[in-house]
Amino acid sequence: MASPALPEISKPKIVDGPGGYVLEDVPHLTDYIPDLPTYPNPLQDNPAYSVVKQYFVHVDDSVPQKVVVHKDDPKGIHFRRAGARQKVYFHSDDVHACIVTCGGLCPGLNTVVREIVCGLHHMYGVKKVLGIDGGYKGFYAKNTELDLEGGYKGFYAKNTVYLNPKVVNDIHKRGGTILGTSRGGHDTSKIVDSIQDRGINQVYIIGGDGTQRGAALIFEEIRRRGLKVSVAGIPKTIDNDIPVIDKSFGFDTAVEEAQRAINAAHVESESFENCIGLVKLMGRYSGFIAMYATLASRDVDCCLIPESPFYLEGPGGLFEYIEKRLKEDGHMVIVIAEGAGQELLSQSIQSTTDASGNKLLQDVGLWISQSIKDHFSKQKMPINLKYIDPTYMIRAVPSNASDNVYCTLLAQSAVHGAMAGYTGFTSGLVNGRHTYIPFNRIIEKQNKVVITDRMWARLLSSTNQPSFLRPSTNLLSNENGSQKSSDKKVTH
Amino acid sequence: MASPALPEISKPKIVDGPGGYVLEDVPHLTDYIPDLPTYPNPLQDNPAYSVVKQYFVHVDDSVPQKVVVHKDDPKGIHFRRAGARQKVYFHSDDVHACIVTCGGLCPGLNTVVREIVCGLHHMYGVKKVLGIDGGYKGFYAKNTELDLEGGYKGFYAKNTVYLNPKVVNDIHKRGGTILGTSRGGHDTSKIVDSIQDRGINQVYIIGGDGTQRGAALIFEEIRRRGLKVSVAGIPKTIDNDIPVIDKSFGFDTAVEEAQRAINAAHVESESFENCIGLVKLMGRYSGFIAMYATLASRDVDCCLIPESPFYLEGPGGLFEYIEKRLKEDGHMVIVIAEGAGQELLSQSIQSTTDASGNKLLQDVGLWISQSIKDHFSKQKMPINLKYIDPTYMIRAVPSNASDNVYCTLLAQSAVHGAMAGYTGFTSGLVNGRHTYIPFNRIIEKQNKVVITDRMWARLLSSTNQPSFLRPSTNLLSNENGSQKSSDKKVTH
Amino acid sequence: MASPALPEISKPKIVDGPGGYVLEDVPHLTDYIPDLPTYPNPLQDNPAYSVVKQYFVHVDDSVPQKVVVHKDDPKGIHFRRAGARQKVYFHSDDVHACIVTCGGLCPGLNTVVREIVCGLHHMYGVKKVLGIDGGYKGFYAKNTELDLEGGYKGFYAKNTVYLNPKVVNDIHKRGGTILGTSRGGHDTSKIVDSIQDRGINQVYIIGGDGTQRGAALIFEEIRRRGLKVSVAGIPKTIDNDIPVIDKSFGFDTAVEEAQRAINAAHVESESFENCIGLVKLMGRYSGFIAMYATLASRDVDCCLIPESPFYLEGPGGLFEYIEKRLKEDGHMVIVIAEGAGQELLSQSIQSTTDASGNKLLQDVGLWISQSIKDHFSKQKMPINLKYIDPTYMIRAVPSNASDNVYCTLLAQSAVHGAMAGYTGFTSGLVNGRHTYIPFNRIIEKQNKVVITDRMWARLLSSTNQPSFLRPSTNLLSNENGSQKSSDKKVTH
Amino acid sequence: MASPALPEISKPKIVDGPGGYVLEDVPHLTDYIPDLPTYPNPLQDNPAYSVVKQYFVHVDDSVPQKVVVHKDDPKGIHFRRAGARQKVYFHSDDVHACIVTCGGLCPGLNTVVREIVCGLHHMYGVKKVLGIDGGYKGFYAKNTELDLEGGYKGFYAKNTVYLNPKVVNDIHKRGGTILGTSRGGHDTSKIVDSIQDRGINQVYIIGGDGTQRGAALIFEEIRRRGLKVSVAGIPKTIDNDIPVIDKSFGFDTAVEEAQRAINAAHVESESFENCIGLVKLMGRYSGFIAMYATLASRDVDCCLIPESPFYLEGPGGLFEYIEKRLKEDGHMVIVIAEGAGQELLSQSIQSTTDASGNKLLQDVGLWISQSIKDHFSKQKMPINLKYIDPTYMIRAVPSNASDNVYCTLLAQSAVHGAMAGYTGFTSGLVNGRHTYIPFNRIIEKQNKVVITDRMWARLLSSTNQPSFLRPSTNLLSNENGSQKSSDKKVTH
Repeated sequence: MASPALPEISKPKIVDGPGGYVLEDVPHLTDYIPDLPTYPNPLQDNPAYSVVKQYFVHVDDSVPQKVVVHKDDPKGIHFRRAGARQKVYFHSDDVHACIVTCGGLCPGLNTVVREIVCGLHHMYGVKKVLGIDGGYKGFYAKNTELDLEGGYKGFYAKNTVYLNPKVVNDIHKRGGTILGTSRGGHDTSKIVDSIQDRGINQVYIIGGDGTQRGAALIFEEIRRRGLKVSVAGIPKTIDNDIPVIDKSFGFDTAVEEAQRAINAAHVESESFENCIGLVKLMGRYSGFIAMYATLASRDVDCCLIPESPFYLEGPGGLFEYIEKRLKEDGHMVIVIAEGAGQELLSQSIQSTTDASGNKLLQDVGLWISQSIKDHFSKQKMPINLKYIDPTYMIRAVPSNASDNVYCTLLAQSAVHGAMAGYTGFTSGLVNGRHTYIPFNRIIEKQNKVVITDRMWARLLSSTNQPSFLRPSTNLLSNENGSQKSSDKKVTH
Repeated sequence: MASPALPEISKPKIVDGPGGYVLEDVPHLTDYIPDLPTYPNPLQDNPAYSVVKQYFVHVDDSVPQKVVVHKDDPKGIHFRRAGARQKVYFHSDDVHACIVTCGGLCPGLNTVVREIVCGLHHMYGVKKVLGIDGGYKGFYAKNTELDLEGGYKGFYAKNTVYLNPKVVNDIHKRGGTILGTSRGGHDTSKIVDSIQDRGINQVYIIGGDGTQRGAALIFEEIRRRGLKVSVAGIPKTIDNDIPVIDKSFGFDTAVEEAQRAINAAHVESESFENCIGLVKLMGRYSGFIAMYATLASRDVDCCLIPESPFYLEGPGGLFEYIEKRLKEDGHMVIVIAEGAGQELLSQSIQSTTDASGNKLLQDVGLWISQSIKDHFSKQKMPINLKYIDPTYMIRAVPSNASDNVYCTLLAQSAVHGAMAGYTGFTSGLVNGRHTYIPFNRIIEKQNKVVITDRMWARLLSSTNQPSFLRPSTNLLSNENGSQKSSDKKVTH
Repeated sequence: MASPALPEISKPKIVDGPGGYVLEDVPHLTDYIPDLPTYPNPLQDNPAYSVVKQYFVHVDDSVPQKVVVHKDDPKGIHFRRAGARQKVYFHSDDVHACIVTCGGLCPGLNTVVREIVCGLHHMYGVKKVLGIDGGYKGFYAKNTELDLEGGYKGFYAKNTVYLNPKVVNDIHKRGGTILGTSRGGHDTSKIVDSIQDRGINQVYIIGGDGTQRGAALIFEEIRRRGLKVSVAGIPKTIDNDIPVIDKSFGFDTAVEEAQRAINAAHVESESFENCIGLVKLMGRYSGFIAMYATLASRDVDCCLIPESPFYLEGPGGLFEYIEKRLKEDGHMVIVIAEGAGQELLSQSIQSTTDASGNKLLQDVGLWISQSIKDHFSKQKMPINLKYIDPTYMIRAVPSNASDNVYCTLLAQSAVHGAMAGYTGFTSGLVNGRHTYIPFNRIIEKQNKVVITDRMWARLLSSTNQPSFLRPSTNLLSNENGSQKSSDKKVTH
Repeated sequence: MASPALPEISKPKIVDGPGGYVLEDVPHLTDYIPDLPTYPNPLQDNPAYSVVKQYFVHVDDSVPQKVVVHKDDPKGIHFRRAGARQKVYFHSDDVHACIVTCGGLCPGLNTVVREIVCGLHHMYGVKKVLGIDGGYKGFYAKNTELDLEGGYKGFYAKNTVYLNPKVVNDIHKRGGTILGTSRGGHDTSKIVDSIQDRGINQVYIIGGDGTQRGAALIFEEIRRRGLKVSVAGIPKTIDNDIPVIDKSFGFDTAVEEAQRAINAAHVESESFENCIGLVKLMGRYSGFIAMYATLASRDVDCCLIPESPFYLEGPGGLFEYIEKRLKEDGHMVIVIAEGAGQELLSQSIQSTTDASGNKLLQDVGLWISQSIKDHFSKQKMPINLKYIDPTYMIRAVPSNASDNVYCTLLAQSAVHGAMAGYTGFTSGLVNGRHTYIPFNRIIEKQNKVVITDRMWARLLSSTNQPSFLRPSTNLLSNENGSQKSSDKKVTH
């Protein structure tokens, strides 16, 4: 999740289309390997596709990033449309694919894994698909000792698993990832060594912005070495904080599951006098889950997100608002994203000393619970506070039906793209259409809730919470993260 | 659901935009009432919206119907973007709105009702909102006897209810519609009489294609009478068979809930020898629920929809396929949309005579169950068949979180549109953006699964079922219902 | 489910206890095999049990069938308490167990299978456990051809599966039975041949009254042949129609899942005018699921069960009651058990002729739906009827937590009993205590709702439905099925 | 929850029955008010009960506390059977009942409230039922200021609500309590003043051991004042820590809901390397929820409860076991009851200093998470720990079907008892039968898991966790809390 310096990435392929738009294109193996042979796409002989008229995506199809049009607008930036191509750059028998999942759990991971395997197998007849165990580190982690013991063969056995449609048949009904995952850094060079050593030529990488940044580095190294290896990313972020795409897979499921916690907070708060139900939701840098869960629930009186700074004390502050709601209604529900109020939190922590207490207080939910209790205790106003942190219960659920279909199409797009020789791309939904997006666009910034936009206004109108804007606050500073409107995201 | 002749509808407002696109615009009260006064939009004083930069939708904003672009494509048809306008044509105190829900149940009905009420109240300060009881008929049904008894006052009491934010506060957590609903015809003239008598000036109509066709007639009659009454439609169809829009509300929830039935069919079929789990899902003319439920589940071996004709006997037929699957796997799951195989069904019914048996056999699920049992009984091949019809269990669930947010935005768009003086329009999502669509575009045809398109090919590839195409079948005949690609619908 | 003549069963072991009670004991291997060696129970070395004081059940422990006591009552009938014994009659290495599941699906089947396997393995160190595929028939069904091909070894491969803790580790989270099941008759002699041929010496049979009747016959044949084989039954009936025991496993889960259908019927009926939501639930001979689902839901206006005859026409009949409820409330919910109204149904079917219609009408839910529609159509009273048959959706769910624990204890009791040399017994809960019950007590009659008892009165009071008793009805005739009070069953 | 000195309670009514058993009887109004008139029970004219043979409970019916019988056992202690009596001591029109809910939330509270109201109304024709708002304090809390303002009438309006079947019709589908609740002490004298002032003559008190202790005091004060007021308790404890009764309502629902958290912990732990999924469940003094949730789930590797002391460091300690499981499996799931390890916790807290950190660490879940992390951090063994506290999500769910039926019968028993003039009793299930239990038996000790009993052995066998018994541990000291076997509780 940390933001290291951007990788030195090869120059973006930006093409001025004759139609007046700008195509932000993705790399292709032929960019650096000349004279690659092509093969007819085996889908043309697939009975399931025999009835499809014009199955293959036209080479010129593109999807605009901006869909609302003013009269005299330029056509703006477009992305290449995803889908099967007439010619492929791999012979099915030669493909040796691998899949890796990185970062925190997100509903739908197993569905994406399943559909890459089944897509490769059923659509292209690819038989060799390797699952890398435990995230990026799985490419090399247990490598050394295995080499010592017995070399190449043992190597495969330990931290990888061969995947086929039978193995993955039921995994979409389970939460988590059967491949295992991990967070944290990795060694690009060792990964590419491992890819090269194993003879892998298609790499599917499922993960968040940090992971996609890693994928960009892996792609650059592969390109530097001149390997015929396609690198395809599938963006995964339960927080919906990846830019450009409409929404990330698992997001709908997460918002759905969050309703349970909000309902519980609502029931608890209504049953006790002066009771605050407090729910912490995911969202380190972006408050989308908190915002959508609040809009879907209608039982929330206050939603705190990273993008909208707030303060506790004094007029217009949180304590004043809580007191008002308790006096009027006797109860209230607060939803807080895990990344909200970080400045307040770090100030507070600096002023305390104990180590283990400190560590606990770094959790914004525990910290704000304690702060609220302390405040009202000082005020001699007895309150009840019921704190719910459903984070892992949300992350671990299987994806719902809508996310299952979405994951399927993301995975199939990635497979079509890799088979067609595209590389260094992410499979993503833009304005309801599947596209290939260059890595640099995915990793250059985070998607954030724009609090000067209508969706956030809808939320404020729904909760009636204060805007927490002090006269001096300069809102514009919140928009650096994104030029896009939050109103655009998800469905609206 | 029947398709009577299209109403004599006023000429569509089609505007050639200077940017090269064609705007299919919606009517406005000023089209037939000159010199209407305007008022500043009260939202500009709403604290929740005070932080929004450029809250009001630009008068020129439009959304293209077609988002995938080829190099030299014309810009094509656009729709007017939904949202709040700077000027409104109603003073809040003068608004007397009514809401009616028509047709079968669909998850989200109560959320739409709730959000129209809350949107009018919280955003525009409108206090008078009437709920019409029991569908279109509620405008006048119990009218006569009440007139006889005591006139106007009793009239209100019987079949309408005043709605305010408190009354609707929790209704989104319940399935069904608190207003009640009904199917079937209605008397346009009586409805407009009732609207006029009651002094209603905003009519919100939630219903399917038949209902929207009725709404078009109501709008035409209101226009003919020159009344200052805005008519706004919110398209409701659990089948997703309304054209132009991305998807209908409640669809995601329905597909989700259908998984339960498919899972049960799967478990039953795996536990018995030669067992067929058969699930009937909604979809009289369009197989979207069956198709998406199949794609989301991955446990289905055969999906039968109205758009893809099939046959039972002989090579390539359903019985042959069933026999093959049972011999290979010992079990299978079939999903059938309620409108599939209607030609086969009517042939079959003509050849039987008994009245009550006949009525039962008009249900395609019961008919095909019986046909399969009869066939294998004749073949002396013992089978088990477990038939599940979850229709009403799906229709009656509350909407999920994603549909709740979607319903909220649909309702708010309709409110903004009516306040801004637009009329004769439907609120609809096009390419991820909320728009106003003229009635004629919504009712002129049905949205159907295009079986020559990739989404259906994905389904065939997932189930491995035969295409049921005999050499002579002319596929083009299936496409009359829609020029749009099913690939476009929902998320993809 | 059919009731053939009772097997010629060995004389029940009835012992007059010195404490004044009568012990209805279960057979023991030593009853017909003299001089069997015994072994110390390996549990005494199990670390998990090392802390248990007096782990082994005292040989004299018994549980009374009747727990409510009047002052001068005799002590009545007792059953032997289940649990581990100090001495066992099998050496762990010599045990070759098999498990078979028979009849319709019921939540918890997989948990029982899992816990027999794990109980044998973890508690007694038994390694050889065979799963018989597809019910009783699996003992011999595919036998012949396999013998022809290659004898003994192939035999195992086809219709049986070896079970160990790893194989069954996650099966309790799935509905259905991993062993497969079947209904219908079987050949006792062939089954015992197969048991003898395979060297099986513990047979665990999970099934309903028909299955337990079969188990009794298998036990008699094994005894006749003098084999050292323990036969243990675990009673399975989703209908709760097995006598003596407190309730059958899966019953709670079934009642829970039935709430979904009743809720849907309630929502549908409230949303339409004059609407009847009709739910058919399981219960061919006993209406427990319908009764408890009605009591748990509180939304039901009429509950029809096999034990309480009803009639349609005339004063006090169902049609009159429906009309009354629709006129008063505009809607109602009816729950009907599948075995209710069978006399009315057979009269009705005899008067119609068409074959396939007939077959459909044999389903009481379809028949009563049609009857209600026909009646009100004749009355010119327009009604809506929404029919829901959730049967297979209920049968196929995994068991809930409470049933999971219950299944675990039932399975462990059966294992302890078989290891201790008991045979011809069923593992069952009596007054909250696990006991061993002789087969004859389980199969001699069915457990039925006693409609002259308080639980049914509670239901009538909750629904306000008529009692459907005509003056001449002799209630006593309904009680033949059971001497037990329904008030006793489940929790109360 | 704290255990103050037992109230000075009137001498228990212990009767030596002629049948050899000892009846621990409950008080009756006639014990201290002579010559009370009786009335025929109105149920005898209730149509729903007209078919019941011998509806009224025989005056001599009793239920034994001990159901497993040895040969020469004495008959032991019995309780009076619950149910309607032939004669009642209140005329329906004279009854003025009140209901109060106290303590933490528990699934089923609303069902009990609903069924007391409906039972009084439908069975006995009682119309006046008052709900006391916010627990015991609601009897008098807002009293003073109201008295100042306007006396008696305003008094009612503020903190009470009249209840009738319509008001409570749907409340059983919601979690929480519509009456509100509170924890903490109360003033017995003020409560009885309030009861007397309002003319209340039946008091229904729903709450845990502290609340029942309060109820005993209220009963004693009422008796002292010689009031004709029946006091009936319904025992509520999500922890199942109330003695004598089979299980408390809401317990099954709580164990069911806990599965969700355990599943999530399991999924998380399997997806990361060296990952511990840690779930904290309710259970301050008794570990029943943790034990049953563990037995139902089968995914738990270690279950820590208050009754079974454990230690962290050294051989046989928790850290050693964790390390072993991580090295063998790479992951594990720990369930901890909130009251487990309190001695370790208090030692640990004494050694730290910071106030707010301390407060957080008083939560055993946070404390043990931190302890585990610190330990393995010192060991340089990288681990992942995912901590889930589902407490409020469990407490706030509506009761499941099985608990709904159970709550109904508990409530009806209480109503029958109060109408029959019994007082100072708790309605409770004993060996599957509803009984009236004197307060002193309910409050004299807590129901605890007996770790020398078979149920705990089953758990140890299922998890394979160490017994945490050091050679010197004297197990007998854990049994003081209860003479009953945990094996008796719930289903077994």
